[in-house]
Amino acid sequence: MAIGTGTGTAGGGGAAPGPGSGKPVASTTSVLRVMNERAVYERIRAAGPVSRPEVAKATGLSKPTVSLALADLERTGLVRTVGQRTGGAGRAAMLYEIRPEAGYVIGVDVGREWVRAALCDLSGAVLVRRDVRSEARGAAALSDQLAALVGELAAEGGIAPADVTYIVLGTPGVHDAERHRLRLAPNLPGWERPGVTRALGERLPAPFLIENDIALAALGEQAHGLGAGVSDFVFLSIGTGIGMGIVLDGRLYRGARGAAGEIAFLPVGETDPLARAPGARRHGMLESVLSASGLVATARRYGMTGRLTTERVYDAARAGDPVALEAVRYEAGNVCRALASVIALLDPRLVVIGGGLGRGGEDVLLGAVRERLADMCPLDPPPVRPSALEEEATVLGALAIGLSTAVDLVFDRAVAEPAVG
Amino acid sequence: MAIGTGTGTAGGGGAAPGPGSGKPVASTTSVLRVMNERAVYERIRAAGPVSRPEVAKATGLSKPTVSLALADLERTGLVRTVGQRTGGAGRAAMLYEIRPEAGYVIGVDVGREWVRAALCDLSGAVLVRRDVRSEARGAAALSDQLAALVGELAAEGGIAPADVTYIVLGTPGVHDAERHRLRLAPNLPGWERPGVTRALGERLPAPFLIENDIALAALGEQAHGLGAGVSDFVFLSIGTGIGMGIVLDGRLYRGARGAAGEIAFLPVGETDPLARAPGARRHGMLESVLSASGLVATARRYGMTGRLTTERVYDAARAGDPVALEAVRYEAGNVCRALASVIALLDPRLVVIGGGLGRGGEDVLLGAVRERLADMCPLDPPPVRPSALEEEATVLGALAIGLSTAVDLVFDRAVAEPAVG
Repeated sequence: MAIGTGTGTAGGGGAAPGPGSGKPVASTTSVLRVMNERAVYERIRAAGPVSRPEVAKATGLSKPTVSLALADLERTGLVRTVGQRTGGAGRAAMLYEIRPEAGYVIGVDVGREWVRAALCDLSGAVLVRRDVRSEARGAAALSDQLAALVGELAAEGGIAPADVTYIVLGTPGVHDAERHRLRLAPNLPGWERPGVTRALGERLPAPFLIENDIALAALGEQAHGLGAGVSDFVFLSIGTGIGMGIVLDGRLYRGARGAAGEIAFLPVGETDPLARAPGARRHGMLESVLSASGLVATARRYGMTGRLTTERVYDAARAGDPVALEAVRYEAGNVCRALASVIALLDPRLVVIGGGLGRGGEDVLLGAVRERLADMCPLDPPPVRPSALEEEATVLGALAIGLSTAVDLVFDRAVAEPAVG
Repeated sequence: MAIGTGTGTAGGGGAAPGPGSGKPVASTTSVLRVMNERAVYERIRAAGPVSRPEVAKATGLSKPTVSLALADLERTGLVRTVGQRTGGAGRAAMLYEIRPEAGYVIGVDVGREWVRAALCDLSGAVLVRRDVRSEARGAAALSDQLAALVGELAAEGGIAPADVTYIVLGTPGVHDAERHRLRLAPNLPGWERPGVTRALGERLPAPFLIENDIALAALGEQAHGLGAGVSDFVFLSIGTGIGMGIVLDGRLYRGARGAAGEIAFLPVGETDPLARAPGARRHGMLESVLSASGLVATARRYGMTGRLTTERVYDAARAGDPVALEAVRYEAGNVCRALASVIALLDPRLVVIGGGLGRGGEDVLLGAVRERLADMCPLDPPPVRPSALEEEATVLGALAIGLSTAVDLVFDRAVAEPAVG
């Protein structure tokens, strides 16, 4: 496979085990022990402070088995006691919770304008949150910035860089893990050169994953937003670029080469002069006509003058300016064509709209989209709703996917592969 | 959920259990027994005549456990002995195979022109294969035909109708299992009326499933064609209608309402006069311009005269007729737009082309498609290959999905829920 969203490992030290890999374990007894401890750990992680009888009831394991598992989890530092529940009848029950300090995750949204980053502990509590202007002028400068930022986040969180368990970087495009570069990322100059992501990884203190930023936004929406509990939904981001994250059967769908959701390249807008402009081949036809610069160019073509931004176009449309309204309607038509394609193919339950242009135009753009979409779909279209997470979606998705890998890593290290001696 | 590809149950007798449902089983021991017997049965099903030690080795179960399971499977009629393997060192080993007569599946491809049907036993061996002209003029006539055909297949196969375990019907459109009707099936007049599929089901002798015909074709391609072992691929059918079957992560992807792959409604061909013709709203924009009648209309618009069929257009293109070539290139352009959308969204490993028009135009149409598709995709497009199964794909897919449900049904009846007394 030429391209994929592979997990890179840090340069220093031995390679970390892949998520959930686990070495072969010798006896059935120890396999069962690890499985039981994992079940107990997951229950405590999901339910918060919880008593031994509650864990036994929820997992179906016997109380002695739960006691053994709890003792081992406490000994390895994955779980801690947190006082007793009193007030009810009978004995006060000791409560257990996971030890947040057992692991740390850093999630970063690497954009052309902003780098947004967060550090959380294994409980998911966000300890540090930082936004900085992106040094996107070249790969070297941006790599410097990212490596420094990871160190700063750790310091500000009061931990050593080596305490970071896992790092997830969201970027535009598709990570080609074999050649250690991005593809389809024209908005991050220099990142398509082979080796560039390996060079970055060697400067990071932990295993890392590079994943498409909009795919992560979909996962953020699943973990904390409108996608919670929705088996099949898509996240359409309209901003500097255009992209889509696809969640099918509750899981991120990546495609054969990690290039699923690269809808910048939908053949929508063929008759638009922007689709024949220089750069359209690199940016994709839909992105050329639909992105922020596309909306501004359309408004200008329709007759708006002066220094235009997407905000100004939207504001003018809100004020009833007929030329601006026409430009927004044109934009909405192309959004509808893209969504009609997605709906015809995937039949999702929900469409979430994010990205600066999508969110910023919530009132004027999405209204026009909803109005027209029904005409283009044979069945009632799914709800089209603006993301509830604002510009946090990608960082939250990076932390969410990072946490699930980090839990695997710390669990494998502590329980499945305990240190010898 | 308003629409879905639900399993209907036959009217007479008690409702059959859903696939793999199984009643709650009392003790851990009996759960383990059923699991072990299922593992042994699946191994025998996969490997053909196989000895007890081979089953033990492949399943990891102990020889005594395998012996117990085999005895029970033989007693319930799911497995039979089939002679001994001799010639090696040591004792001759008794060989086991599944008993083909333990269940039967009927698969039917219900098209506008033809109804294609097959009966197979539980080993997958096709016992009867019939093609008849479709009585598609109305739902009542077609229901009569299908009910009669199922009886005829059973008779010809030498079994009673009650011996049929499961029936799978492939039709255009989306089965709305709640209202017992088809949606998006303009090529089967009368089938969008509520209750029509329930009325058919009451005349069938076994539980049945109604599934989109092209989705089944994709499963046929997975079971017996180019899709074997390919995790992510799509099957594009171009004929009287247009449709797509989508296999993701090795499984049929159906979407929230079973309407995934309804690409007749892709907004491709907007500038085509056919997209504004009466019926385009019902048939979908892409289907209007791309189906058999669309190609003929395009050829006529480009200047071909006389009694035109798709074959004549293709033949003329093969002979170098410039007008026919232009019509085929136009057709190829729209196929490419559709495929570019699918590839941008799903990043499949393989595109299989089926349907009369897709297969019939293999040389002239697919050549032009391959030539142009690379220009519309940012990464190398996946291979685009004609189906190896000709018009058998849907029937084979119906048998394949029907077999997996039938195995669940006979297993549940014989082992998991043995008759009392």
